[in-house]
Amino acid sequence: MTTMTEKKIDNRAMLTDLYQLTMNAAYFRSRKNDKATFDLFIRKLPQDWGFFIANGIEDAVDYATNLSFEDEDIEYLGGQGLFDKSYLDSLKNFRFTGDIHAVREGTPIAPNTPLVRVTAPRMEAQLLETMLLNTINFQTMIATKANRVVNAASPARVVDFGLRRAQEKDAAMKGARAAFIGGAVATSNVLAGKEYGIPISGTQAHSFVMSFPSEIEAFRAYAETFPNNSTLLVDTYDTLQGARNAAVVGKELEARGKRLGAVRLDSGDLADLSKRVRVILDNARLQYVKILASNDLNEYKIAELNKNGARIDGFGVGTELITAKPVAAIGGVYKLVEDIDGAKIKLSSDKKTYPGKKQVYRFSKKNGFYSHDVLALEGEGVDGKPLLEKFVANGERIRERMNLKEIRAFCLGEVVKMPESARALVATPYELKTSVALERLVEDLSTKYGGRQ
Amino acid sequence: MTTMTEKKIDNRAMLTDLYQLTMNAAYFRSRKNDKATFDLFIRKLPQDWGFFIANGIEDAVDYATNLSFEDEDIEYLGGQGLFDKSYLDSLKNFRFTGDIHAVREGTPIAPNTPLVRVTAPRMEAQLLETMLLNTINFQTMIATKANRVVNAASPARVVDFGLRRAQEKDAAMKGARAAFIGGAVATSNVLAGKEYGIPISGTQAHSFVMSFPSEIEAFRAYAETFPNNSTLLVDTYDTLQGARNAAVVGKELEARGKRLGAVRLDSGDLADLSKRVRVILDNARLQYVKILASNDLNEYKIAELNKNGARIDGFGVGTELITAKPVAAIGGVYKLVEDIDGAKIKLSSDKKTYPGKKQVYRFSKKNGFYSHDVLALEGEGVDGKPLLEKFVANGERIRERMNLKEIRAFCLGEVVKMPESARALVATPYELKTSVALERLVEDLSTKYGGRQ
Repeated sequence: MTTMTEKKIDNRAMLTDLYQLTMNAAYFRSRKNDKATFDLFIRKLPQDWGFFIANGIEDAVDYATNLSFEDEDIEYLGGQGLFDKSYLDSLKNFRFTGDIHAVREGTPIAPNTPLVRVTAPRMEAQLLETMLLNTINFQTMIATKANRVVNAASPARVVDFGLRRAQEKDAAMKGARAAFIGGAVATSNVLAGKEYGIPISGTQAHSFVMSFPSEIEAFRAYAETFPNNSTLLVDTYDTLQGARNAAVVGKELEARGKRLGAVRLDSGDLADLSKRVRVILDNARLQYVKILASNDLNEYKIAELNKNGARIDGFGVGTELITAKPVAAIGGVYKLVEDIDGAKIKLSSDKKTYPGKKQVYRFSKKNGFYSHDVLALEGEGVDGKPLLEKFVANGERIRERMNLKEIRAFCLGEVVKMPESARALVATPYELKTSVALERLVEDLSTKYGGRQ
Repeated sequence: MTTMTEKKIDNRAMLTDLYQLTMNAAYFRSRKNDKATFDLFIRKLPQDWGFFIANGIEDAVDYATNLSFEDEDIEYLGGQGLFDKSYLDSLKNFRFTGDIHAVREGTPIAPNTPLVRVTAPRMEAQLLETMLLNTINFQTMIATKANRVVNAASPARVVDFGLRRAQEKDAAMKGARAAFIGGAVATSNVLAGKEYGIPISGTQAHSFVMSFPSEIEAFRAYAETFPNNSTLLVDTYDTLQGARNAAVVGKELEARGKRLGAVRLDSGDLADLSKRVRVILDNARLQYVKILASNDLNEYKIAELNKNGARIDGFGVGTELITAKPVAAIGGVYKLVEDIDGAKIKLSSDKKTYPGKKQVYRFSKKNGFYSHDVLALEGEGVDGKPLLEKFVANGERIRERMNLKEIRAFCLGEVVKMPESARALVATPYELKTSVALERLVEDLSTKYGGRQ
């Protein structure tokens, strides 16, 4: 059934770096389980990007509120010869009991914005790190990449064709979902359609065309099976002749009261071919037949095609959409910002962190566009719309999971309010300013901890 | 339990591109289900790579031999309004009944080598495409990337630190496994340790050091918990002072009959710092304490460190190991090469395929190194060792799944027999020649199909 509900929460307690468990064992032995606050944020935008679309938040909240260790997990850990029995026993009752603030899934944000803020007994907060980063880094990257592709293609539409090049199954699944949130209209991934309710879309492969004695026979066989939904791949032998063959089949369908859907180009000079194919289709009075294109596309190639007047109605984007190649990974980190001793800071020049429990405030211009955000200490009393909302209180989810349709609508509605310069292909980064009180705290702590060893 | 067995076969019938199902529906309607052969191969090596390590084969075979559609899958597909009832009904009994030849998991191969060859009724062979590519593209990429990193690091050892930057859960899991096959000695990923029996490894984070009043107190708390397994992170405040603090704790452990394991550097000039830290440790007669390093490493940076005389015993490699950044995806394809009408060819100049049912033969020099492979028609009678072995006959796996330890040993044993030039950091591609008969077939088919439209 095509529904927009999402289900299935898997338990990711063991999907963690070993050091989370060894550090926790040392905290356990040192009886160091004071309340600590960690921020998850991304320091740097990839080249040309103007913002990130925060994504993976809802999954992360579900994972955090459903973490537990199974008996076989504890048995495995016991077999490593690292941990003493009292610590292993403590894992039996491990639950997350803290608070999580986060920005809403689909929110466009600047680098250094805390997407997620966790306050919990130190061991619990620590254990979330790896799992939060694994999920949020990837989903945020793909939602943002997809949005860049969608913006470049507009008004043409973008379909996720990435499954075969995705970095295994979850990347294909969560990637299809993230791409849909970022504005893709459909996916070729049937399982993503079934699980998430994303519209599915497909055409045909060269092997199909090659499996019939002639191209037109292949087209006819396909059109007979899908008289109202056919997209015919026209470049197996010669693209223009393929388009003429498609037009013949289109007219045959018309004679039966049906309509050919589209043709697909998958090689050659797509701008030039699309114009010529458009002429062929229009001359056959098949103005309604759309032209789709694929072939190792990305936002730059698509923008170039549109600039060159390509007559392309839809783009199938695979490899670079689903892996964000060449970016491939964004560097989200999860840093201690406060504990029982107060606000914490890390001083390495290239790996600065902002100390203390913070909130992010969004400011708008009179024309409705967002102008910038301000990172401030919590309760500092800054104007602007606060972005961090409470999702989890005392280990319980208190904010209902948004469904996928809502997230997508929210995301796309927010993105259009971002400054145009931040949405450009070669973007100016959306600005995050820091409040006076936060800057003062940074200075104070730099003085206090600067000499510490 | 730490075992080297792998289990759990998931059903990936629905992890497919929609067009596999629509093409099959058209084949079904056209009663076109003749026996067809498809090759899975990768056309191009990423820059500087000398070969691929074929990986994901065992998973792919398991998936292929366990594919089936659940009732809810068929119900979902029925709801799309695309397929007629007779086709949907046929999916209820869908099973793969064909043959699969493949190279052994862990085999180093040249581009254009068929890693997998599927011969089956056309609809079955077609349906495997997406799932095979998704699994084999990723696992092959990571095993190869890891092997490059391992070769650059040798004799220092490499640990997979990639979990937090992996493209979601499966990429982290299958990636840890592929990295182990490619020569990594351990992973930080606890779940990969549990599921696959890969050794797990961990150190500590800056947040741990910052959670104690001083660095040395943090080191003591950790060393007390892990008196024989501690790796201390020494760069939170000042790396050299951190190393001195670690040495103090090392001597305290010694006094209790214990031994500090290692220190870890995570920032700065790693070559220079490693030499100075080595001196600090040696002066404290802690020659046995190892030095580990991390910080956005890859094979190029590691080679440079080793060239500069870095005294580093082990490298933790994260982002670029687990995503193969900037490569991010390799372009494996799955192409029809033979059907009831004989050998098939695709003629696009940049997307050539070799027609017919083929075998790959490996040739060695007298010194035991491999010299090149020859791609030939099956049964052509070429000397050399055939690489494609039969894994599946009539839908049944006939070759027992190799366990992970065997695969790793086989892979590393084969890689050392590859030409040195192909194993270099900037490699010369390992050569795949084509047989005379295959070249003749290409010519014949080019003439025959060149004019087809």
